[in-house]
Amino acid sequence: MADMLEALESIIQDRRNNPQAGSYTTSLFDAGRGRIAQKVGEEAVEVIVSALSQGREAQLDELADLFYHTLVLLAELDLTLDDVKQRLRQRHQPPA
Amino acid sequence: MADMLEALESIIQDRRNNPQAGSYTTSLFDAGRGRIAQKVGEEAVEVIVSALSQGREAQLDELADLFYHTLVLLAELDLTLDDVKQRLRQRHQPPA
Amino acid sequence: MADMLEALESIIQDRRNNPQAGSYTTSLFDAGRGRIAQKVGEEAVEVIVSALSQGREAQLDELADLFYHTLVLLAELDLTLDDVKQRLRQRHQPPA
Amino acid sequence: MADMLEALESIIQDRRNNPQAGSYTTSLFDAGRGRIAQKVGEEAVEVIVSALSQGREAQLDELADLFYHTLVLLAELDLTLDDVKQRLRQRHQPPA
Repeated sequence: MADMLEALESIIQDRRNNPQAGSYTTSLFDAGRGRIAQKVGEEAVEVIVSALSQGREAQLDELADLFYHTLVLLAELDLTLDDVKQRLRQRHQPPA
Repeated sequence: MADMLEALESIIQDRRNNPQAGSYTTSLFDAGRGRIAQKVGEEAVEVIVSALSQGREAQLDELADLFYHTLVLLAELDLTLDDVKQRLRQRHQPPA
Repeated sequence: MADMLEALESIIQDRRNNPQAGSYTTSLFDAGRGRIAQKVGEEAVEVIVSALSQGREAQLDELADLFYHTLVLLAELDLTLDDVKQRLRQRHQPPA
Repeated sequence: MADMLEALESIIQDRRNNPQAGSYTTSLFDAGRGRIAQKVGEEAVEVIVSALSQGREAQLDELADLFYHTLVLLAELDLTLDDVKQRLRQRHQPPA
């Protein structure tokens, strides 16, 4: 089965390339980069608050929100999850 | 090849379960949940600043930092990347 | 004329001590410390975004929001603007 | 006695107009708007973490840091504490 983050990234890229009325993702791209970056920050704040004062369900909700909005920001920046993974690989996997 | 986020998550979980002197990841677990949550917030702030005022390389660096510290927070909370993917799947994939 | 930040602090403390139906400030105290801390973080994020991508009016709006919610957090923590000023005085004003 | 926030604002404006080698405030203006905005965000994150998991002394330290860096951002944006107070007065003080 396809990895869910990659599947979600594909959906997000499709919403950017083929705007759909009523789609929340499309509304974010319409609102622009400042608004998308703001949402990533707000979700990170909610992740912090949930990590320090809430339970597992709230934490998972906020973390899922943070991943989703970060994927939207990636698409907005013309970057991909694969670009990020490659950057992480360069750092964390020493050459053979 | 294993997915890099999952591979990194395994490394992080191993650092938590088998602390290593000199490991940055180990130092985060030692510093505790407040410090780990703080790092997620700080990296999100750097992602915002880079998205609005810097170039592709800086953006990738900050996004990689955000993903890494979010994986550390997941481990600290006894949650997994798979838990997050499942939550995202529930939201974004309608039943057949 | 009284300093506006101190005047606003008094209003906020009064809303905490004498909850008023329909007051936004009262609703924040009712929602609790996690929610108030979250608002401070969200407003800081909006200050960042406005500083890097918006004009003077938006910047002033977001900064005013940040000061207001920080005053609410001070009251929630049983701290005062005067406590903060004293801390700043200790740091920035050398002994005679 | 002069209000400490206004006194601190004057010191900060002086550091901007008359850069001093070795001054932290001067180093922030040299680093630029992105870096100053980033510091405001980071201090807000530390305020959140301290509000939810630390004691009074740590909370006061982080709040003092947040006020200080916000005053630096005001100066960077060519705004003043008075501008913010006026905006707050417009919102919170009904006409006579």
